[in-house]
Amino acid sequence: MKRLAAIIVLFVSLISQVSTIHAKQSGDLKTSEQTKACIGCHSMVTSGIVKDWESSAHAKITPADARKKPEIKRLISSDNIPANLSSVAVGCYECHGLNKQDHKDNFEHNGFKINVVVSPKDCGVCHSVEAKEYSNSKKAHAVKNLLDNPVYHQLLDASLSQMDYKAGQIKTHKPSEKTKHETCLGCHGTRVEVKGLKTVNSQMGEMKVPNLTNWPNVAVGRENPDGSIGSCSACHPRHSFSMEIARKPYTCAQCHLDPDVPAWNVYKESKHGNIYLSKWHEWDFKPADWTIGRDFKAPTCATCHNSQVISGDGQVVAKRTHDFGSRLWLRLFGLIYSHPQPVSGNTTLIKNKEGLPLPTSLTGEIAPKGLISQEEQKKRLQGMKQLCLNCHSTKWVDGHFEKMDNTIKETDKMTLTAIQLMLDVWKSKVEDQSNLFDETIERMWVRQWLFYANSIRYSSAMTGAPDYAAFKNGWWSLSETMNQMRDWYKLKTKTGKR
Amino acid sequence: MKRLAAIIVLFVSLISQVSTIHAKQSGDLKTSEQTKACIGCHSMVTSGIVKDWESSAHAKITPADARKKPEIKRLISSDNIPANLSSVAVGCYECHGLNKQDHKDNFEHNGFKINVVVSPKDCGVCHSVEAKEYSNSKKAHAVKNLLDNPVYHQLLDASLSQMDYKAGQIKTHKPSEKTKHETCLGCHGTRVEVKGLKTVNSQMGEMKVPNLTNWPNVAVGRENPDGSIGSCSACHPRHSFSMEIARKPYTCAQCHLDPDVPAWNVYKESKHGNIYLSKWHEWDFKPADWTIGRDFKAPTCATCHNSQVISGDGQVVAKRTHDFGSRLWLRLFGLIYSHPQPVSGNTTLIKNKEGLPLPTSLTGEIAPKGLISQEEQKKRLQGMKQLCLNCHSTKWVDGHFEKMDNTIKETDKMTLTAIQLMLDVWKSKVEDQSNLFDETIERMWVRQWLFYANSIRYSSAMTGAPDYAAFKNGWWSLSETMNQMRDWYKLKTKTGKR
Amino acid sequence: MKRLAAIIVLFVSLISQVSTIHAKQSGDLKTSEQTKACIGCHSMVTSGIVKDWESSAHAKITPADARKKPEIKRLISSDNIPANLSSVAVGCYECHGLNKQDHKDNFEHNGFKINVVVSPKDCGVCHSVEAKEYSNSKKAHAVKNLLDNPVYHQLLDASLSQMDYKAGQIKTHKPSEKTKHETCLGCHGTRVEVKGLKTVNSQMGEMKVPNLTNWPNVAVGRENPDGSIGSCSACHPRHSFSMEIARKPYTCAQCHLDPDVPAWNVYKESKHGNIYLSKWHEWDFKPADWTIGRDFKAPTCATCHNSQVISGDGQVVAKRTHDFGSRLWLRLFGLIYSHPQPVSGNTTLIKNKEGLPLPTSLTGEIAPKGLISQEEQKKRLQGMKQLCLNCHSTKWVDGHFEKMDNTIKETDKMTLTAIQLMLDVWKSKVEDQSNLFDETIERMWVRQWLFYANSIRYSSAMTGAPDYAAFKNGWWSLSETMNQMRDWYKLKTKTGKR
Repeated sequence: MKRLAAIIVLFVSLISQVSTIHAKQSGDLKTSEQTKACIGCHSMVTSGIVKDWESSAHAKITPADARKKPEIKRLISSDNIPANLSSVAVGCYECHGLNKQDHKDNFEHNGFKINVVVSPKDCGVCHSVEAKEYSNSKKAHAVKNLLDNPVYHQLLDASLSQMDYKAGQIKTHKPSEKTKHETCLGCHGTRVEVKGLKTVNSQMGEMKVPNLTNWPNVAVGRENPDGSIGSCSACHPRHSFSMEIARKPYTCAQCHLDPDVPAWNVYKESKHGNIYLSKWHEWDFKPADWTIGRDFKAPTCATCHNSQVISGDGQVVAKRTHDFGSRLWLRLFGLIYSHPQPVSGNTTLIKNKEGLPLPTSLTGEIAPKGLISQEEQKKRLQGMKQLCLNCHSTKWVDGHFEKMDNTIKETDKMTLTAIQLMLDVWKSKVEDQSNLFDETIERMWVRQWLFYANSIRYSSAMTGAPDYAAFKNGWWSLSETMNQMRDWYKLKTKTGKR
Repeated sequence: MKRLAAIIVLFVSLISQVSTIHAKQSGDLKTSEQTKACIGCHSMVTSGIVKDWESSAHAKITPADARKKPEIKRLISSDNIPANLSSVAVGCYECHGLNKQDHKDNFEHNGFKINVVVSPKDCGVCHSVEAKEYSNSKKAHAVKNLLDNPVYHQLLDASLSQMDYKAGQIKTHKPSEKTKHETCLGCHGTRVEVKGLKTVNSQMGEMKVPNLTNWPNVAVGRENPDGSIGSCSACHPRHSFSMEIARKPYTCAQCHLDPDVPAWNVYKESKHGNIYLSKWHEWDFKPADWTIGRDFKAPTCATCHNSQVISGDGQVVAKRTHDFGSRLWLRLFGLIYSHPQPVSGNTTLIKNKEGLPLPTSLTGEIAPKGLISQEEQKKRLQGMKQLCLNCHSTKWVDGHFEKMDNTIKETDKMTLTAIQLMLDVWKSKVEDQSNLFDETIERMWVRQWLFYANSIRYSSAMTGAPDYAAFKNGWWSLSETMNQMRDWYKLKTKTGKR
Repeated sequence: MKRLAAIIVLFVSLISQVSTIHAKQSGDLKTSEQTKACIGCHSMVTSGIVKDWESSAHAKITPADARKKPEIKRLISSDNIPANLSSVAVGCYECHGLNKQDHKDNFEHNGFKINVVVSPKDCGVCHSVEAKEYSNSKKAHAVKNLLDNPVYHQLLDASLSQMDYKAGQIKTHKPSEKTKHETCLGCHGTRVEVKGLKTVNSQMGEMKVPNLTNWPNVAVGRENPDGSIGSCSACHPRHSFSMEIARKPYTCAQCHLDPDVPAWNVYKESKHGNIYLSKWHEWDFKPADWTIGRDFKAPTCATCHNSQVISGDGQVVAKRTHDFGSRLWLRLFGLIYSHPQPVSGNTTLIKNKEGLPLPTSLTGEIAPKGLISQEEQKKRLQGMKQLCLNCHSTKWVDGHFEKMDNTIKETDKMTLTAIQLMLDVWKSKVEDQSNLFDETIERMWVRQWLFYANSIRYSSAMTGAPDYAAFKNGWWSLSETMNQMRDWYKLKTKTGKR
């Protein structure tokens, strides 16, 4: 009853609401009848979403008109967009009403069949090239890559373990699902499944909605109820789907930060970061044909890693890609040693020579399978250099990458040193090997590669953050911790095991 | 003589100065004669202050005119503002000349009776609702809450202790007043008292001014020479008294940051923080009727915690409050365990079941007195959800708070685990219990709840910062330190006490 | 052949390119024929550089016209600028073609004789006062001050050491040149030398260019191939040479940050930093006559340390200086104890009473030679106070500096306490003294002064960051680490040396 009354009130105000929205849109852009109905209620119950959408390109141009732009300025990539979508604004229903047959999260909602979770497959109706590229990226496979790899799983269990204490002993328990969602899976993504319907007390009264497990989560590798993987809104946050936000470094900085992946931390201490932070207000983050010198004067993450970049004289320096990592030759972080980029975003396919799903052996040898060839590495390095060369001389750029090669070699060497000590520790049974990542000295060892060696490599790669690489999370910590590991090992040997 | 000459020079230029100021103000806004005299000198000797004031609302509208705005757009809340204040700009003298009888810091200054320290009581003449709300907040009582609580005082002494070394022994001394002012009391506030007059060498020659102890300090709980508590300029910095500054997160970030209160650190790594940092330049932080979608598209601290917030369709979603904490049901930080919000901002009134001024027992039981009821908690949670629901669905919001509840439970459990070990440590006399917070293993224990458990709860509450909650100051540190505590305890047991 | 073809293509488009550039410049500003030729190619091969230069003052005004401005608004300081430079835009060739006789990095480049590295000596042709001031600063001597001081060199070797492990022992090796460049020398600068010519594969085909060692590097103390020291582009990044960038705190923040030099970290948590971060978008960072209240309302690093600052009533409060440190009386960081500022930027001239190149003895006594007098200290403090007094009262400012004096005394005392323990450690041979900075307990000791005492002093000096000085890297860490040092010493004494 309560709900019915609310709906009546809403419909009374529907017409005025919708005409307001129309007035804000450019010219005579058409909004579908379904979307108008959505907006009728939602401009009241979730006004923030509607206002955000109004500021988006989706609300301002039809797919058909977007297709007419010259390729270099185009953000839409599909050739055959269905007519019912092509000629109207890309509104609520155009996205939440797609591919219903695949969506286990589709439900009856005030007379419409609505999907809760819009997936890359849905976005791919208009942005097919981007969706395809993304589907091969490590981001898209971020859940599987973590949870289906027994080695990483052990690290996750140790890092997040819950503990009881009794009489000098600690008993550890595996982390809860909810805690995993707020930590590792907060960046990697969760497996979102539908467990029937659930009644919620919404602002419109009681409503039955799909009971989604592991929700909310909008992380890069989310496994969706339509069977697809990934989440576009991880970087293009709803409902403005802003390219400006994705191109600014704060988006990447949600996940790529210290101590384990300090891309943002290094960037903001670099010359590039300094120039960005000082001058971004004079730059333009919106053009599809993002032009060096005209639109920006120092790179952000997106410039080097995935945006289309145009030189000052109008040449395409780098093509847009949503296969993150595809411009990179080496993988510097997340694993024990640096190594060539994986061939597939699904890294569970990699096997090291011992048969473990790791890109290297424990002593550093590169996995024989699943990593890109030296030739491909060389090609990608050359592509990256082309970007640098728009603002730096050849000698400068070559000098930079020579330093980086040396740093990778030296930090991998320091990782090996730490592992050689750990092999003695494990052999001597001072610590047990049931989980490689949990005891005090094992944590020191993990910090060596996961925090410090990584940080030094990042600092080198992004040509900046000398203090970070020295004193913050770099060489100082690497050598200090190595000494602490040796001291701890000696001490345990002398004082006996627990 | 020197001073007299300076004053003569000043008065010569007085007329032109003041007429310049008038020209900048809107229309024929009147400035009091006293304020004109202040500005005459101070536009030369402290030009920064005068320029800042000129940019303030105080310089642009009289209280009488401000009262005429519709309530939703009004920033002034008193009904009976004295006529002499109501019809002029709110200038130097209007604030520094108020309530003289109460101000022990009132002094004779070039022919005027001036208060040095403008207090919440003074601001309350026009902003009575805000002053009253503030007076019940924990912020207003921040000095007393810290210094008059024997447990916290012990933590303060340990954290800031000064040390001598001799022959293998460390002797500790209590921190100095000045060091307390620059650390704990830098955020909490100092007790500002008047010790007669003191001669200073000002730019205008020698002058006698009140000799204020523990000055300067503008922190939230400052105890003022007029007997009042608090400082409005802690968040509305002088002399623009900007609401924009208070609504931007950098103000809160002066005190609420890592490692113990990492609100800002978590925010800037969250989706909300990302959107703020990427898009604030298109938002408006000035309207009293701060409207979702129109004025901002992601919350800052002020949105959820104290600003008036209006929905896209013009409804008041949350009323303005200056009783910080009054929208919150739980208190997540600063104490050993999370617990219901205190009833009064004066937390020295709370007593746990052992009679100590703490909101929980050492083993986590909630204090029977001084904390809000379950019903009140439920009501406040509902109010917060109303804010979220402007941009998120009911299922989304419910899912968020379910995760948060779980995280609170789990982190409190980990705190208990650490305490159980500490009880063994203290019982075994491996460390003495004279100060609970000073020895090496005690510091590990304090870090468990004051740094790590707090950080995890913040990350959860603000729906972001998964890396922070995992590796930065979160679960990784919590489990690593727990192992270190056990190892240290074993080692001390084996090698004997100091 | 390939190169020739490329050049032909380029010359075809030369005319249109250059005329475009002209159109963007104000009025009929003349560009030299040589610079036109540079731009002809480089607007294609390094368009980012050309676009950046186009946005600079160098592209918009001739030195002759710049000289005509009133002194307070002037950024050019030389009296006798050669006529060939004075009447044209300051373009590529005007800087890269200067003082050829001194430049070992001069080379034949498409018909022109070009220097790769533009040095302070070159900039000094027009900016002679700034170049001279800079040449006396510690920044200019930053390479020598680090590498030619045997004590610092030992710290550098320990901090960056590379390690092998075998049978319980760690063997250390000196850091590589490349690693030094990416860490310590990333801020201090490298010794750039020319080792003949080298063939590179440029975008224009193969080219012979000078083979510069230790390149790229643009840090403050770089030793240049023309025999000069320093790098202006460390703070005025190429090729906009922006004063705005230099005045914003991000430039200083590239090197002055935690854990060892946390100026930026403290600033952003201070009230001044809060106001800057909240309101910079309404300020103007470009005027030479940078005016309090008109152009900015809270100081950035540059305000207090080197910019020309004008009061609200047009008086010069502080003259511009590029001798960084010349406004300061004490040196708070980088060394074991605080001490008076050095007389010369070349700090290798300082000798402590034991004859070591340090400003104090190991137990804190001030070096008898090479530091400024008490009188000079007093004068500089007075100058700094003049800056503060534009926005704060005399009592406020005096109170601030009294607290700072106390903090310096207390932190130096805590450093002495740590050293007294270390003297026992070294005497007892628990750790060897061959390198003072490498073993576990020595690292704790270094952290005491290099990280924690420094951080506390910074927090005090910049009147902010109370949480930083308490819990982040301050008193908490200072007292915690002191206890750990004692515990470690006891433990080693009991369990025997390695």
